Amino acid sequence: MEHLQVPQFFGLLVVLFAAAKLLGALAQGIGQPAVLGELLAGIALGTSVLGLLDAENEVFHLLAELGVAILLFEIGLETDLRRLLQVGGAASVVAVVGVVLPFALGYGACWLLGLSNLVAVVAGASLTATSVGITARVLSDLGRLQQQESQVILGAAVLDDIIGLVILSVVAGLTEGQEITVGTVTKTTGIAFGFVVAALLVGSGLIPPLMRRLAKATFAPGTLTMLSLMLALGMAWLASLAGSATIIGAFAAGLLLGRTEQGQDIRKGVVQLGHFFVPIFFVMVGTAVDVRLLNPFHAANQQVLFLAGLLVVVAVVGKFLAGYAPIWFRGRKSVIGVGMVPRGEVGLIFAQMGLSTGALDPGIFSAIMLMVMVTTLMTPPLLKHLLTRVPGAEPPPRLEDVQELVS
Amino acid sequence: MEHLQVPQFFGLLVVLFAAAKLLGALAQGIGQPAVLGELLAGIALGTSVLGLLDAENEVFHLLAELGVAILLFEIGLETDLRRLLQVGGAASVVAVVGVVLPFALGYGACWLLGLSNLVAVVAGASLTATSVGITARVLSDLGRLQQQESQVILGAAVLDDIIGLVILSVVAGLTEGQEITVGTVTKTTGIAFGFVVAALLVGSGLIPPLMRRLAKATFAPGTLTMLSLMLALGMAWLASLAGSATIIGAFAAGLLLGRTEQGQDIRKGVVQLGHFFVPIFFVMVGTAVDVRLLNPFHAANQQVLFLAGLLVVVAVVGKFLAGYAPIWFRGRKSVIGVGMVPRGEVGLIFAQMGLSTGALDPGIFSAIMLMVMVTTLMTPPLLKHLLTRVPGAEPPPRLEDVQELVS
Repeated sequence: MEHLQVPQFFGLLVVLFAAAKLLGALAQGIGQPAVLGELLAGIALGTSVLGLLDAENEVFHLLAELGVAILLFEIGLETDLRRLLQVGGAASVVAVVGVVLPFALGYGACWLLGLSNLVAVVAGASLTATSVGITARVLSDLGRLQQQESQVILGAAVLDDIIGLVILSVVAGLTEGQEITVGTVTKTTGIAFGFVVAALLVGSGLIPPLMRRLAKATFAPGTLTMLSLMLALGMAWLASLAGSATIIGAFAAGLLLGRTEQGQDIRKGVVQLGHFFVPIFFVMVGTAVDVRLLNPFHAANQQVLFLAGLLVVVAVVGKFLAGYAPIWFRGRKSVIGVGMVPRGEVGLIFAQMGLSTGALDPGIFSAIMLMVMVTTLMTPPLLKHLLTRVPGAEPPPRLEDVQELVS
Repeated sequence: MEHLQVPQFFGLLVVLFAAAKLLGALAQGIGQPAVLGELLAGIALGTSVLGLLDAENEVFHLLAELGVAILLFEIGLETDLRRLLQVGGAASVVAVVGVVLPFALGYGACWLLGLSNLVAVVAGASLTATSVGITARVLSDLGRLQQQESQVILGAAVLDDIIGLVILSVVAGLTEGQEITVGTVTKTTGIAFGFVVAALLVGSGLIPPLMRRLAKATFAPGTLTMLSLMLALGMAWLASLAGSATIIGAFAAGLLLGRTEQGQDIRKGVVQLGHFFVPIFFVMVGTAVDVRLLNPFHAANQQVLFLAGLLVVVAVVGKFLAGYAPIWFRGRKSVIGVGMVPRGEVGLIFAQMGLSTGALDPGIFSAIMLMVMVTTLMTPPLLKHLLTRVPGAEPPPRLEDVQELVS
């Protein structure tokens, strides 16, 4: 791959931001969340349409990953850990059912189509993990992050991301022909969950007094934001070393710092960085979409489209029903179900892994890609529709938004 | 070159920021500007010491270039175009003398040492362009950007960057054995200066009414900052297409936006982004330093060190005297002279070009590298000393600093 030159890099950033802002504003103009426009901007700039941005581009890929880490850090800063734990029971049930049901349904669908056991496992696994970024962004855009349903979605999405990564390491072993024992699975699971619990326990003791001391010292401007970001990226890195996902480390850092007295100041600085990095993530998600797969007149696409349609149905039904699993929960279960629908990165990683190890043929890979695309693009408008149709449920404008309007 | 993985990228960012903040704070602790600490952090992380960050790393190189573009954009936002034009005469004289004198002295020194004509031209050319980033950062850290001397330095540095790029294209032709005519040189010069003049003239008519209209529209938070950044990066890109430097385009965008009613709001948002990107630039400048060249007990280094010493003397004397060239200027000419001393990117580009075309042998290349290093590292403490030794000249704390202290 040839190296990006500096002027070309600047030019691509301008084009990326211009497309994201323009289509984001258009999406809002027709009553949809801005993130939908950013995803469409990515599709337009991607290799299958204009060919300006390659989803595989190293620099933009890394900036996008930084973007989603900063987004989850922001979300963590806005999330009240106690309220998250209060809905912990409901979130856990949604997460577990939301992993088991889509996996079982996906496996079953592939089995009915006569596909091999390994293909059915990989396809089923690709249906398990919710992409928390999309839903969190929509909830944040609509000012609904503090609702109980949103807390359940966030908790469940973080949990099923962890479960998804455990499944990933098991499936990775399977596709490479390794033997999987109960011991190795237990160990992987323990490390992944252990990291989050340990980080929150240790951090709860260390971070607040540390921040109080730092707040007393005189800083160069912006130091507080940068120190917080260093904690978020550091915990993301540690999470990855512990076998968990970087975004989970960033989210945990946000939970910890959000509880300190400096939480709101930190959030203001991080949100400013987010304005730069977060759209890059959503645009890059869009660039991974190959619109040529959607042409039904191309014979080779018909089988792919049929399998993709089946996977979409299974993906939506599985997560939607999972939203109703915590029967005792008093809240709008339909919002939870829809909020869990988008699949993203982890699903794509399964598909990519299956393709590169030869477990999946290009057709099945494309069907999984299409499932990820459709579930991602359908969620923002659906969620917006569900959240705004209740009369009188319009939230007041957030103080921060008004303050940031001029910044 | 192998690809950076996401967790590794996050880890490197944490290490980079931690080293920059720590050594920056230490530098300030001993009364030096923070930027000196950031440069030293880069030397420590670079290939010749810890080997954690490679100066050639594509991702960090691009982020660093984005950092210096954002820095020049910030500086442009803080610069009053009318005041810059008021000192335009002095700045032009400093720029021209500051190009001619170091070139002539450098050429002469190489000629006395019996080096070839081509080597003397390349070495002389590498002495011409001031690295405006270092000086601007020191002046900004000390709250002195609004002083008359600072305006002369900024104006002269921008002009000699343009002149440097004209020389670069001429020397590039020479090292490749091309024929250089008066016509081609005039054309290159015309395009480079023409871009800045055209951008400022066209922009002065277009930007203020555009910003007034945009300010009336309702925005998503952060949109104003991102639109401004898009203008800066877009103009940087255009500048490069017009044969000028990206940082000149970014600076011109800052000059234009700084004059609008939204200038201060834009600046606040851009400064927040700068907290992330600007230190990456200075750390990456540091990573280009190879400390092994400094060992005088290694025989091969002695010749290099001698030539480097000669080039440093020539570099300092040439620019220092240029500061005294506008004899009518009532201000501290020593500050101007010292402010023009640091050489950076353009000098390194000359050296790199000379090495890759075979015009320079590795020893002369290293001597130029050392000259860039020494002039860069000596300027922050010298400038700080000059600017703070006048009794009663301590500036009041800047309002923005106080406001940003908590952000």
